[in-house]
This record gives sequence, structure tokens and C-alpha cells, in this order.
Amino acid sequence: MRLLALLCTAVFVSAPAFAQGPSISPISPRVDIEPYRDIVEQIIEAATSDSAAYNRLAYLGDVFGHRLSGSQALEDAIDWILDEMEADGLSNVRGQPVMVPKWVRGDESAILVLPREENLPMLGLGGSISTPEEGITAEVIVVGSFEDLEARASEAAGKIVLFNVPFTNYGETVQYRLNGATAASRAGAVASLIRSVGPFGMQTPHTGTMRYADDVEPIPHAAITIEGAALLQRLADRGEQPVVTLKMDAHFEDDVLSRNVIGEIRGTELPDEVVVLGGHIDSWDVGTGMMDDGGGCVVAWEAVRLLHDLGLQPRRTIRVVLWTNEENGLRGGTAYYDSVMVSGQLENHVLAIESDGGVFAPVGFGFGGSDEAFAMLEPIAELLDPILSEGSRGQKGVTRGGGGADIGPLMREGVPGMGLNTDSDEYFWYHHTPSDTIEVLTPDGVQRCVAAMAIMAYVVADMPGRLPVTPVGD
Amino acid sequence: MRLLALLCTAVFVSAPAFAQGPSISPISPRVDIEPYRDIVEQIIEAATSDSAAYNRLAYLGDVFGHRLSGSQALEDAIDWILDEMEADGLSNVRGQPVMVPKWVRGDESAILVLPREENLPMLGLGGSISTPEEGITAEVIVVGSFEDLEARASEAAGKIVLFNVPFTNYGETVQYRLNGATAASRAGAVASLIRSVGPFGMQTPHTGTMRYADDVEPIPHAAITIEGAALLQRLADRGEQPVVTLKMDAHFEDDVLSRNVIGEIRGTELPDEVVVLGGHIDSWDVGTGMMDDGGGCVVAWEAVRLLHDLGLQPRRTIRVVLWTNEENGLRGGTAYYDSVMVSGQLENHVLAIESDGGVFAPVGFGFGGSDEAFAMLEPIAELLDPILSEGSRGQKGVTRGGGGADIGPLMREGVPGMGLNTDSDEYFWYHHTPSDTIEVLTPDGVQRCVAAMAIMAYVVADMPGRLPVTPVGD
Repeated sequence: MRLLALLCTAVFVSAPAFAQGPSISPISPRVDIEPYRDIVEQIIEAATSDSAAYNRLAYLGDVFGHRLSGSQALEDAIDWILDEMEADGLSNVRGQPVMVPKWVRGDESAILVLPREENLPMLGLGGSISTPEEGITAEVIVVGSFEDLEARASEAAGKIVLFNVPFTNYGETVQYRLNGATAASRAGAVASLIRSVGPFGMQTPHTGTMRYADDVEPIPHAAITIEGAALLQRLADRGEQPVVTLKMDAHFEDDVLSRNVIGEIRGTELPDEVVVLGGHIDSWDVGTGMMDDGGGCVVAWEAVRLLHDLGLQPRRTIRVVLWTNEENGLRGGTAYYDSVMVSGQLENHVLAIESDGGVFAPVGFGFGGSDEAFAMLEPIAELLDPILSEGSRGQKGVTRGGGGADIGPLMREGVPGMGLNTDSDEYFWYHHTPSDTIEVLTPDGVQRCVAAMAIMAYVVADMPGRLPVTPVGD
Repeated sequence: MRLLALLCTAVFVSAPAFAQGPSISPISPRVDIEPYRDIVEQIIEAATSDSAAYNRLAYLGDVFGHRLSGSQALEDAIDWILDEMEADGLSNVRGQPVMVPKWVRGDESAILVLPREENLPMLGLGGSISTPEEGITAEVIVVGSFEDLEARASEAAGKIVLFNVPFTNYGETVQYRLNGATAASRAGAVASLIRSVGPFGMQTPHTGTMRYADDVEPIPHAAITIEGAALLQRLADRGEQPVVTLKMDAHFEDDVLSRNVIGEIRGTELPDEVVVLGGHIDSWDVGTGMMDDGGGCVVAWEAVRLLHDLGLQPRRTIRVVLWTNEENGLRGGTAYYDSVMVSGQLENHVLAIESDGGVFAPVGFGFGGSDEAFAMLEPIAELLDPILSEGSRGQKGVTRGGGGADIGPLMREGVPGMGLNTDSDEYFWYHHTPSDTIEVLTPDGVQRCVAAMAIMAYVVADMPGRLPVTPVGD
């Protein structure tokens, strides 16, 4: 009910048409960007005049390394950020407690033993069980899809199933990482492998989360490289019956206390209304998680730090949240959502912005929410224009469709959400790999992302009218 | 003397101008390509109608793996090729004995131990000595050039020197791989590291050969990744004094008997005159050496196999030679040269063609030899045109400048030489890395390289006039 009321209120705000009569225009008021031109110029100038965010990000990676949920490195990084945010002068800096899973990779390997011995570079998938200590040695059956496995299920018993599935798009191909072990186990396989989820690699395995259906016997599940999968495919095609020894020590330990990191600039007029922006501070246990998603965290944090340094205090509160455990649990996003619901603050969430697509050169924001809210925001694209790249997929500016995993629970309740879009054609080259390091990013791209995040957060937090929260189902 | 005589003879052959008078034209006769148009069409049709060469190459990599000098895999691969060449029906198939060095990598690692622990992906460099069993643990001094090291030589004693030198071009940057240990040892360092020699990587180390000057104490020498070198650079720049533990078991064992692989199509009229074409069959001990240089070998071999299958027997002999030990000794190329000199066959070598730049889509041939010889050959570009790619560096067709390491000794005696040029902008992404596998090549590119090699070898072996051998110094 209150949500619906808010929605109706929203369309009245600062819409010139309404001054002339009581009838409700079907056209929502668009934000008047004129008052923000000078401020935006200041933001852009400040964000792009140095490499502060890029340097802070590199420091995060260099000093703490990767930050898997449950690791000491993650908590050390969080401690450092909390201290830095305090030193930056942000308000209400705090860690929000979250219990997170602790999955530990341990030693692991995949060795082709027949027809000849060759090491197959690999990464176990997050959540997988281990093999026995001596490993699992079995013939590999290579399939091209779930359907292919079903058709050949009678051949799979006692074997290692390899899903050699070329990358099409993440949503489609990641199904084999998520559910491959379940399908292989149902067919009687003793372990499962996938071709890494990515369009290009240099003998690079990609890790990521996986799960078992409740009704199957868990079996070890790991990713090999594009090259490794192609080798096994060719051997199988020639009838050479490749045999692989897979060894994995992977296991879960007890859940561990982690934290979402929160800091704010309090609003001047409507401090209870909040624009949230952030990324996730956990990463996989390879590389340094600079692209996924240290960069998303730092650009959100630096956007707020920069607004604070410029003395720009908007009408509403701007809150940076660095969620924990996005990668293998989403416990941080869930805990934040739970706290919002428990405290009855949902309707105060005007907008949630997530950056989790790599802080390459920004091309704009993808918006998930009502048409009314979209229409209000669209003019902000003009303010962003000086720092946006063209992008290769026509998504420049503020476009329909977007959000993020951590803000998903809020968005499902009707909070408008946005994802920062970047010129990230190579994102899935590096995603969840040892080469997700600072070298894939540039100072220019990172600093422009800071500007984009700061502009969007500031304007939405300050504009006279607020975005409508759209109840689910509307 | 005989070489000069040959040179003078050559310019008389099939030059229409000479029919009109005795004076020697300053313009060399250009090969008349008209008689070859039909044959070239046949060659192109045959080479591009299937993936025979690509499949043979993949089989070589899949079955034998990498082929470092001294390894059983190299000799097994050579045995297989000799058998296959016999089965193909080539003439005078034989292995030419060559003693080659046997450098063995052994276990190795580089671990950043301070300020925090992180594995640095690495590859020891070919020819390096080992560390003590417990490794060498020392602070790293990061330098940007030989000059930089000289300027800071007083800081280097007892430390590990890292040459963090960005890739400019191979000839320039490889100096740090070749000579870095010598320079570091002179400065009193206990070990040396280089940033891998390549413009791009995904935590990918590049191996390759290195050497010690006679007057220095050998120290271990290894390559780390671009990302690893950048990390150490940033730590050093922040004054954090990175400490690395380097462990290497690398060592030489006794020289081993290997072979150059040789097969022929005998010439019909001038069988003693020879066009040689080939690549090197050895590789580094990472990846499967498909680009460097399994592909070069197979396209030369398949070019000759294809001419044989088409029943195309030129006036002169075409000889495929797959040289051994190019990577860390050049003993194969040297042995072939020695045999040529001992038997007095140098002047019978009309042309030597090497393919060692990756069998990507062909763009043409780079020629090393006299202006007269170049002028004779240049028209062949028109025959090649249907199968050539444009290339990104303007080298399409038959261009000046080219050759190869294995044919270098012949070329230094005046034998005209050629290198197959390909559209290989990414060659140094993969060069000497675990990702030098069949996946970097395409059937289309490989098959077109076969056609290019077959056309060039056939026309030069068959054309009425022969290329002049130019004595050194002329």
C-alpha cells in the first residue's frame, strides 16, 4: 500500500505540466538537469584529474590479494576499508555482520594419463566436493550439451563427463558450471568437468560457483581450459578414449563472520531517503579480483569520497555498501535486504546502483524499474555524456534493463535498480581467472567510472522529485 | 668464384631482352608466370578443399605433445613423420643425425613471500642453471633497462634483479631474456627475473633461450608474467621491498642424438638443383608448439606431399627439411649447412624457404637476397594473390627482407632465402607459452599457408631461369 502511494506521489513532483491543472499527465516528470551542470563539471574535473581510485584499487589488490568468503584476506581488506572510510570523513561508517560460507579449494589437479600424460590446467568449482585422496581416474566422455548427455547417458556410468560447450553468453553457458555435476551424477558419472565459461583464454581456467540438486549424489566438479577441453574432444573423436586423473581437496569449513561495509553522506533535507551504490568486496580465490569486483567497490566508494571532498551534500542520503559473499552465497546482499525489511526502510530506498561488470570505460547505466522512473532518469544521460565511451553494443547512456545480484532482493520488492555499464567486451576473458588483476583496467576507465557513479548518485539523491518504488507485479 | 659465375649465368636465362642483342640488361629477367596459372589453380584447389594439414598438425600436437630438444617426444614425433613421409611417397626420406643439447626444466616456482605470500606464475629460461634445493630468497630490485641497472648497480648485490621491460619488438626486448642474467650477475645479483617477452598475457609466462657470458658467475634466470612484474614494480615503488623465493631444478644432461627430417620430390631436368623449404620440429617444453613451429613444419611437408599427390614434378628438386633444435642451439640448421658445405652442394641451393612465424593466414613472403633475385621472383605474388590476406603491416605479396634462423647459415653464404609472412599480430601473445596450441590456428589459415608454400616452391623449382646465388659481400 505505502509503495503504491509513493508511486502515485512521485509523478506529481516538479512536473511543469501539473502547474496548469489537476489532471494527471501520463508523462512522468523528467529530472531538470540544468541546476546540475556546474556540479557535474566539478565532479568530472575532480574524478579525472588524478588516479586516486585506480591507485586505491591497486593497493587493495597488492596488499590483500584475493578475497574469498571465509578468508582472512577478505576480513583484513574490510578492516582497512572501514578505517579508510572513517579517515575519508564519511558518516555512519560500519560493518554489517554477515555469516558467510567458507569453501576451501585445497590442492587440485587434472592430469591426462592416457593416451599420453599431460597436465590439464584446471580450477575446481566453488562448492564442489573433493575426490578421494588418490584422485579419481576414469575415462572421459565428452558431450556438447545436457541433451547430448541425456542421449548418451548409458555411456556415462563410471566415467568423467566433460561438458565441452562453447561460450555463447554467460547466462546460457554458465548453466554447465552451475548444474553440470547434477546432470552428470544423474547419469552415473564419477566426476564432471566443464570447458571454462569464457569466449577466449590462454590455457586459462575459470572458476565460479556450482551447486548440487538435493536428490543427487554429489560428485567433484571442475573447469578445464578451452584448450584442454578441445584436446579431450579431439582424442575422443579419434576413438582414443582419454583417461584423466582428477584430484581435489575442496571442502567446506564452518561459516565465518564477515561484514558488509557501509558508509554515508547524510542528506540535508530528506536524510531517511537513500540512494545506495556499491559492489561486492569478496572475490574468487584466484587473481586479485580487481575487475570482479574490487573495481566496482572502489568506484562506488571513491564516488562518495569525492562528493564528500567537494562538499556536495545532496537532499537525500547517499550510502555506499560493499556487499560481502556475492560470489558463492549472496549472503551480503541478502543480509542488507533483510535489515532493510526488518527496519521498515524499504520504501526509503530511492535507487540502488551496482557496479559489477568491470570498471572499464563507462558507457552508461542499465536501469531496472518502472517506465515512469526510467523517464525521470533518462535526461541524466546528457550530464554523463562527456565521460561516456560509445561502447560496442549500442548501450550508451541510460538504457532499459539492468541491476545486479546484490541489489536483486531490493529490486524484486520494487526498488529501482541500476547497473553501471562499461565497455567490457573482454570481461569474460578474465572473469574468475588468475588474470583478473589490475592490469586489465586503466586509470582513465576507472576514474571515469567514479565520475559516472558520483553523478548518477548525486543527481538522484538531490533532485526535487524522487523515483517511485514500484511494487512487485506492477 | 663458382658463385659469381652462377650469378652471371642466371641473368641470361629466359630474358626476352637478350634475344635482341648481346648487351647485358641491367634489368633482371622476371619469371614468366603465365605457364603456371593452371597449376597454381590446381594447387590452391587441392590445398583449400580439405583440412588435411591442419588435422595432421593437430595430431602431431595431440599425440606427441611438446618437443624440446633431448626429449623422447621429439624423437617419437620425428619417427612418426619419417614413416608418414615414406607413406606419402616422398623420395629420399631420411633423418640427418644431429647431436642436440638436453636442457631439463625440472620443478620450479617463484613465490612472493613479503609483504604477503603470492604465487608468481613463472617459467625458467632455457639454459639457466638451478637454484640450491632450498631456493634463493632475496629482496627484488626492479629495473627498467640495462642502463637503469648500471646506474643502480650498487643496490643489486645479493638481490634478485627484475628487468621489468615492456615489450617493444622482439629483437629489442628479447635482449633481457638472452643477456639479463649476465648483466645481473655482473652487478652482484644472486638471480635474475624478466617480465615475459610479449605484448599481452593472461598471467602467462614466456620461456625461451638465454646464455651466460663466459666471464660471469652463472645465476638462475626466469621469466615471470606481465602481471607479476607489475606487482613487484608497484610494491617496490611504494618502498615495500618485495622478497621472492625462487626455486629451479634446471640443468643440462648429456647431448642426445636427434635428426633433421628430410624428404624430396626429385627434379626432372636439374635434380641436383634444390629448393629447400621447412620449419623446425623442436619446440619449447610448454604448450604443444603448434604455432612455433609445428605449423611451419607441417605446411612445408604438406606442400610437398600435395605437389607429389598432384603429380607435379618440377625441373629442380624440392626438398622439405624439418630442422631440429632451432630453439636452444640451432644445431639442426648448422648441421644441414655443414653437410651442404662438406658435399659442395651450396651453389645447388637455389632458394631456401622457412616458415617460423606462425601459420596464420598467409600474407606473402619476405625475401632476403640480391635485387636481381628479388626482381625475378616478384611476379609470383600475382599467383599467390587469391590466397593471401591483406595483413595489417602492409607486407602483402613478395617483399624485401626475410629469412629464418635455420636457413641463416645458407643465406650468409649467398643462398637466397625467404620467410613465409602471415597475419600474425598475436604471434607474441602465444610465443613460447603453454597456450601455443592448435587453438591459436585455423584450418583456413593453415591450408592457405600450404598453398602458398607449394606455389612458391614449385614455381622457383620449375622456372627456366634459376635464382642467382649472391656471394657474401656482393
